Amino acid sequence: MKPRPILDSLTGPADLKKLPTEQLPVLAAEIRAELLDVVSRCGGHLASNLGAVELTIALLRCFDPPTDKLVLDTGHQGYVYKLLTGRRALFQRLREDGGCCGFLSRDESSYDLFGAGHAGTAVSAAVGFAAARDRRGGHEHVVAVVGDGAMGCGVSLEGLNSVVEATRDVLLVINDNRMSIAPNVGALARHLNRLILGRRYNRFKDAVARAVQRIPVVGPGLRRLVRRVLEALKSLVVPATVFEKLGLRYIGPLDGHDLPKMIEAFERVKVLRQPIAVHVITEKGRGYPPAEKRPEQYHGMSRFDLDSGEPLPASGGNGGTSFSEALGDALVERIGRDPRVIAITAGMCESTGLGAIRARFPDRLVDVGIAEEHAVVFAAGLAAAGLRPVVAVYATFMQRAMDCVFHDVCLQNLPVLFCLDRAGVVADGPTHHGILDLAFWRALPNLVIAQPADRDELAAMLNALLDHGGPALIRYAKADATPLPRTANTPIEIGRAETLGEGPDVALWCLGRECALGLELARRLAPRGIRATVVNPRFVQPFDRERLLEQAGRMPIVTIENHGVEGGFGSLAADALVGRPGVRLLRKGWPRAVVPFGSEAGLRRSHGLDPEALAIEIEAFVHAGKTAP
Amino acid sequence: MKPRPILDSLTGPADLKKLPTEQLPVLAAEIRAELLDVVSRCGGHLASNLGAVELTIALLRCFDPPTDKLVLDTGHQGYVYKLLTGRRALFQRLREDGGCCGFLSRDESSYDLFGAGHAGTAVSAAVGFAAARDRRGGHEHVVAVVGDGAMGCGVSLEGLNSVVEATRDVLLVINDNRMSIAPNVGALARHLNRLILGRRYNRFKDAVARAVQRIPVVGPGLRRLVRRVLEALKSLVVPATVFEKLGLRYIGPLDGHDLPKMIEAFERVKVLRQPIAVHVITEKGRGYPPAEKRPEQYHGMSRFDLDSGEPLPASGGNGGTSFSEALGDALVERIGRDPRVIAITAGMCESTGLGAIRARFPDRLVDVGIAEEHAVVFAAGLAAAGLRPVVAVYATFMQRAMDCVFHDVCLQNLPVLFCLDRAGVVADGPTHHGILDLAFWRALPNLVIAQPADRDELAAMLNALLDHGGPALIRYAKADATPLPRTANTPIEIGRAETLGEGPDVALWCLGRECALGLELARRLAPRGIRATVVNPRFVQPFDRERLLEQAGRMPIVTIENHGVEGGFGSLAADALVGRPGVRLLRKGWPRAVVPFGSEAGLRRSHGLDPEALAIEIEAFVHAGKTAP
Repeated sequence: MKPRPILDSLTGPADLKKLPTEQLPVLAAEIRAELLDVVSRCGGHLASNLGAVELTIALLRCFDPPTDKLVLDTGHQGYVYKLLTGRRALFQRLREDGGCCGFLSRDESSYDLFGAGHAGTAVSAAVGFAAARDRRGGHEHVVAVVGDGAMGCGVSLEGLNSVVEATRDVLLVINDNRMSIAPNVGALARHLNRLILGRRYNRFKDAVARAVQRIPVVGPGLRRLVRRVLEALKSLVVPATVFEKLGLRYIGPLDGHDLPKMIEAFERVKVLRQPIAVHVITEKGRGYPPAEKRPEQYHGMSRFDLDSGEPLPASGGNGGTSFSEALGDALVERIGRDPRVIAITAGMCESTGLGAIRARFPDRLVDVGIAEEHAVVFAAGLAAAGLRPVVAVYATFMQRAMDCVFHDVCLQNLPVLFCLDRAGVVADGPTHHGILDLAFWRALPNLVIAQPADRDELAAMLNALLDHGGPALIRYAKADATPLPRTANTPIEIGRAETLGEGPDVALWCLGRECALGLELARRLAPRGIRATVVNPRFVQPFDRERLLEQAGRMPIVTIENHGVEGGFGSLAADALVGRPGVRLLRKGWPRAVVPFGSEAGLRRSHGLDPEALAIEIEAFVHAGKTAP
Repeated sequence: MKPRPILDSLTGPADLKKLPTEQLPVLAAEIRAELLDVVSRCGGHLASNLGAVELTIALLRCFDPPTDKLVLDTGHQGYVYKLLTGRRALFQRLREDGGCCGFLSRDESSYDLFGAGHAGTAVSAAVGFAAARDRRGGHEHVVAVVGDGAMGCGVSLEGLNSVVEATRDVLLVINDNRMSIAPNVGALARHLNRLILGRRYNRFKDAVARAVQRIPVVGPGLRRLVRRVLEALKSLVVPATVFEKLGLRYIGPLDGHDLPKMIEAFERVKVLRQPIAVHVITEKGRGYPPAEKRPEQYHGMSRFDLDSGEPLPASGGNGGTSFSEALGDALVERIGRDPRVIAITAGMCESTGLGAIRARFPDRLVDVGIAEEHAVVFAAGLAAAGLRPVVAVYATFMQRAMDCVFHDVCLQNLPVLFCLDRAGVVADGPTHHGILDLAFWRALPNLVIAQPADRDELAAMLNALLDHGGPALIRYAKADATPLPRTANTPIEIGRAETLGEGPDVALWCLGRECALGLELARRLAPRGIRATVVNPRFVQPFDRERLLEQAGRMPIVTIENHGVEGGFGSLAADALVGRPGVRLLRKGWPRAVVPFGSEAGLRRSHGLDPEALAIEIEAFVHAGKTAP
């Protein structure tokens, strides 16, 4: 831990309150240095946190969590809050096994009043805290801090719509960096932008307010009259905001890096006790030139070189193509020859690999912002009009639109292809693991579900499923997508599995990239006298029941998936095999429990899903069958 | 089919266009009579359709579906559209087996351009149609018709936020009856109301426009100047709307029962070709006094007496308490003695049984409107603040908030109790069946899932799960909840099943109210020499694995559920039993397919899930085991 005089002197928010005002900018500089130091070593969300330094200091000068309920949306802006609420030592091990969670978490600290990882929940949660306080007759402040990107989420907008009826006192801070992860889109973002551009009107308004203060007191009547005239004048030049239309008072825009101004504004707002939206303008990446220049690239990142800003090779990584890149390449190829195909993402253009489409076919890409439900229904509308939309989103975020996938796509049997990235565990932890969604997808009518083992298979599946012309879904983990060694090339056929290696002692059914692990396990088992068949199921729905049943009659079956076993592929295998005489089935995957954050290797080790542990367990499983009656 | 001269003369929308204007009000009256006749016989959505008669006529006079893309939200206002698009004969068998779907459906008619049953999808779908048209260079009109209640849905708001960036030409018709299903809530609804109250300003605006037209042509310059001054004046008195803030032009409010005015407005709007919101005021239940007086009661209803407006006894019904009523009663009892409990619903107060709370403890009920995501996160906020929220929503609608149940409640292990009504097939069909959700819930960490067999059990579970103090969920079908005959009263214990009858030949594990069917099957099997054990699992997660394993060692197992077998309770049983020697398992439930609309009895018959078919199948299953090696 590097020495930082002021940060070192703070044990918690109470100390921050006592700090002389003139030391606050120094503290801000120390925090930025600390963020850069830790994130460059551990990876994490950089640009958003660099932008929220002064805002977080101002909030903690003015409010008193955990008594006051500070609800930070998404958690992309939570690092500064962690540093200032007694977690500096823990923060040194950001996102490491047993270290500091990359998001807010009620389990980590009593200062984290409401956890989040998916965007847009802070308004509704804050409204809940405020309504509970009102019922209790309490007086604490409730503050939601929401990025402008997250404000466009359906759940944020539902929450905003509910404020005025749910409580008479809640503070909504819009941290507006004119980005979500990518530059922000949508009418609300444009509206916020117009408010920023209209700032001169607010200066005029301030001038008016000062003028009113200077009117000599010749009786309250006159001052009231003048004020009323000036208010009318103001309404002529200051366009009312959406927030005011929805019953909140609007204050802003404020410079989010001007500490005294923000502190003054929050202190003023505190006494008003009404629903208020404070609009704060911040700069993503502030203070680190590479991140200021390319904030999207510095949003969520792996460890990097502080001087150059360039990413460092991942420890243990092999530098092969990722599935995200493979999707971008396959889609570029298809879009180039199929005028019906259009790519859609929800604020995740680069990280889903669609940057390749933006570069080559910008008019064939629609980024709807953080609005997964709209993305899916919009795609359904496009499909009903004859196009072939491809929706690329992270598996965990697509949970937001589960009903739309069912109601708008599957029930109507429309040709929309979903490409779900990060379908497996990720360093970001429980809110971001893509290990639950299959449990629902598998139950949906008409939906074909595929999971490729490598980049070639992803490309072939993409084309096969676009040709198929019904609802379809391809899932893949954040993993190396280098082509697997194969002896034969079996063409993709919906519902058919592929055999990667033959052996008579056990069949390893390995979903998606787990095939690489399966081949590794086969190599490890061979010297122990166990010759394994490795099967790549390729499809989850419909899946190759016939091959499974045939093999299960001859040898024990092991399913391996980077998904929860409950409701996952292992459960599908159990459904097929139950009641068959002599069947032996071992299902390996994540348990029905909160799987923590940390490195994938660490998580696998702690759950017995690493090659060593699996080889030992499978060996014992195979031998147990041999000695059993 | 009763003779109705004008309606009889129309074979499709083309005929409607040719009808002399003066005959339109007569047509409207005929349509109302037809709606009342059919809905009083078949049940269905009455009040919303009575309110949309003139609006639908006007839309079909001005637009040309299926060339023009008319997207009707939810489908609660789709009956008139069906009557006018060649489906009058089919409509006589509304919601009957093989008859007319109660919602729009692409399978039923090419005029149904986009199906819906869940609220709020029309804006996004229309934006999809419009974007596809723009890409193609087409010229057809795209119109979304959305109720004011559905406009508050997250997905509607995401769609609204996207309009201005997605297309330069789409028409959004807000059918504002100041209700969703119940009287509407939320800031947007208030905003719309203020626009209605502000109607005088629009009259002023019209007067201004006429004045401008009358300025003698002394050169375009002067007229422009005067117009500009008047526009400025207008902005002083007409508050700009949320729609204008979001980039749409706003026109309204219009009287939704004034046919000439609406037709004139739509004709005017057609040529503008820009994103426009037309705000139409309609009256729910219009033309039928009982429905005008109590529109919520006449929203969705069973068959009723036309003269009195009173409901008729359901055919085959037994008049016992429903699970919805049982929930209301149990919750009233609990709320009366537990100050932490607060009930939340999403626009479904009466139909979920929470009317009892509204009557007895109005300040302990929050209806958030059609906003399931907000309902769940708001509840999570209340729970984090120490309360014990109970969220009552239909199973199918809770799919909208699956991610919030996971991300905000289960991951944080917060004590929110979900009560999911209509968890089974319903007459409304595929969009409304509650037969998929369990597949996802079962995979969620920390979530306890219960399913009661009768009203007493529902009450006991509600209390046990509120005492338990973690995330919990109770599911129940639209069914009679009369207490089952029991020989013993086993207290509720989380994860423990109950045995309702003992027999050595087969064990019927019947989820929830399927226990009544199980007892009936036991009676039918006895004379055939099969003595059945009937088990009420009570809990799905955790469930009574020990009892299942013990029984499976002695006799064949049958699982029966009013849910899809794929991912449902049968799948859980398979997970537990796979690989056990000698196990025999038969899983009965709905298939992974689009289960159509119609009577529950009819659906059960067509899927082999009626008592006769099940008894025969179970008998054969049991005997097959006896003869097998």
